[in-house]
Amino acid sequence: MAKKDVNSEEEVKNKQVILRDYVTGHPKESDFYITTSTIKLQIPPGSNAVLVKNLFLSVDPTMQFRLRTVRHKHLDGYQYYAPGSPINGFGVAKVMDSGDPNFRVGDLVWGTTGWEEYSLIQQPQKLFRIQHTDVPLSFYTGILGMAGITAYSAVYEVCTPKIGDRIFVTAASGAVGQLIGQYCKLMGCYVVGSAGSQEKVDLLKNKLGFDDAFNYKEEPDLDAALKRYFPEGIDICYEQVGGKMLDAVLGNMKVHGCVTLCGMISQYNIAEPENLKNVMQIIVRRLTVKGFSHRDHHHLYPKLLDTVLPYIREKKVVYVEDIAQGLENGPAALIGLFTGRNFGKQVLEVSRE
Amino acid sequence: MAKKDVNSEEEVKNKQVILRDYVTGHPKESDFYITTSTIKLQIPPGSNAVLVKNLFLSVDPTMQFRLRTVRHKHLDGYQYYAPGSPINGFGVAKVMDSGDPNFRVGDLVWGTTGWEEYSLIQQPQKLFRIQHTDVPLSFYTGILGMAGITAYSAVYEVCTPKIGDRIFVTAASGAVGQLIGQYCKLMGCYVVGSAGSQEKVDLLKNKLGFDDAFNYKEEPDLDAALKRYFPEGIDICYEQVGGKMLDAVLGNMKVHGCVTLCGMISQYNIAEPENLKNVMQIIVRRLTVKGFSHRDHHHLYPKLLDTVLPYIREKKVVYVEDIAQGLENGPAALIGLFTGRNFGKQVLEVSRE
Repeated sequence: MAKKDVNSEEEVKNKQVILRDYVTGHPKESDFYITTSTIKLQIPPGSNAVLVKNLFLSVDPTMQFRLRTVRHKHLDGYQYYAPGSPINGFGVAKVMDSGDPNFRVGDLVWGTTGWEEYSLIQQPQKLFRIQHTDVPLSFYTGILGMAGITAYSAVYEVCTPKIGDRIFVTAASGAVGQLIGQYCKLMGCYVVGSAGSQEKVDLLKNKLGFDDAFNYKEEPDLDAALKRYFPEGIDICYEQVGGKMLDAVLGNMKVHGCVTLCGMISQYNIAEPENLKNVMQIIVRRLTVKGFSHRDHHHLYPKLLDTVLPYIREKKVVYVEDIAQGLENGPAALIGLFTGRNFGKQVLEVSRE
Repeated sequence: MAKKDVNSEEEVKNKQVILRDYVTGHPKESDFYITTSTIKLQIPPGSNAVLVKNLFLSVDPTMQFRLRTVRHKHLDGYQYYAPGSPINGFGVAKVMDSGDPNFRVGDLVWGTTGWEEYSLIQQPQKLFRIQHTDVPLSFYTGILGMAGITAYSAVYEVCTPKIGDRIFVTAASGAVGQLIGQYCKLMGCYVVGSAGSQEKVDLLKNKLGFDDAFNYKEEPDLDAALKRYFPEGIDICYEQVGGKMLDAVLGNMKVHGCVTLCGMISQYNIAEPENLKNVMQIIVRRLTVKGFSHRDHHHLYPKLLDTVLPYIREKKVVYVEDIAQGLENGPAALIGLFTGRNFGKQVLEVSRE
């Protein structure tokens, strides 16, 4: 076949990030190891698969669920990791060989791929083909990828604010929070964010256009902090932290307010969830609390591109990435999410082309 | 004035249920006392008030909030009780004198009134005039009153089921639960209820048409109980209990399920709310959790009458009341709600006419 040269029959080295064993408690760098296997740069004969070269990998907090033996059967579509095998996640990749007529050699795609240099993707129908390359390719791991769908659907679909609404965004400098805050500002809201360092607070206030921001680690009383920033209460909270933060939020919502939950990073790695004292405020204040996932909103992707690509090109939205280099640094990048080491969306660059 | 006779100038005896002092912890009968004052059976000159004779009083769990010094500022419209004064709540009454052109002597009304024989109602504009008297008047404390608006709005407005949905109703033999369950049955759903005695379970299964029911006090493991009744999960839960029950519910909802919260009776009288382990399931299962109150749905009352009056007349709905006799028995009736002593909607009959 014309598209394959002789070299594609040869095996090449394929560096991989392997899960050592199932994780309990906090994941650690030593739960992973790096190995180098080999791979043919072509799909098996007759296969519908796609063979890709991975360029950028998305480093996501929810990956921790997949390191464990505890199975959430309702996380449908989740592939749990297997010890001894490479982990996987969302990423940007280039097609090297294809048995799927929708993808051609040289196409750029984003979707689920392996934490390795090359991946054989057995279900290419779930990949998105990247059609706009005037923006950085890494953006398809975030603002134009899964985190982007999460943020877009949160604001435009799950709980849409009105002009003047008073919005609170937690984990506000992270992949999703930074976008939610800016989308709400573009809709004419008053937006306050919380983050875990002064540097992140400065980013929110000085670069991302948040009206105000605070470092939750410097607030001994989160309830008092929220009362200071929202003396009249919060209309909408986009919450991703859980625990004490969610509890303080429930105690500071306006009547008929909405709380969206798309993450709970403070609760992922602890044995017992923190006690919430304010659950009854859901009734007292007649709140709506909505759990959601990007997985229910992939059909919005064309609308997202229509809205967000112009925002990027016209610099109406600032997008902050923290790009780690090389698969060797993948485990540290993943672990760093749970200590807040990342500054903006955490990405892992595997290859520049 | 022609409508007033000479006797109306005289003072008559007025038995009252008085709050002794603010309550902490569980309310007790001794937190109240009965006294007899006097009242003129006419409104003050020039007043817009209405003077009523109370017939039936609604005994509601949420009254406990109003016995305390802890103020929920978001419970707007709530009047907190004052020690030394009669408590109040929803009730059915007959107009004895009126300064409001919308109400005439002899009219039957329902709305907020005092726990006493006669009440001077300063804001009669909030009263509903009773226009259908072919059903028992006490029904206007329940199925056609506040609890009725709660149940109607839960099913027809807050979270409306589809045919075949699998529904779980907690506190299912109570004022609200018994109606919700029957409305869902009329909509073609599979309905299971929980209650606190075998007698109540029998009522649900044999009289109210629930598909199944269980006694939560006999279930050492509520999670296991729900998995038994809902092996495929719950589509909608109408939850009024809170604590362990809510936690078990969150762990047994289907993906995209809805939980409505309009009460949390297990948590009202305890110092620290029970710990919930399954809050993260709101995200994992992408649930919607909606707190609501009848107070936001009074505009639905004409639709409620259009729907529910025929149900009553055609006996499509069974409505179970537990009617205590006389103001002296009011405190015991109120306290009994928190031990589940009531069998159906708790009503207090003050006078038959």
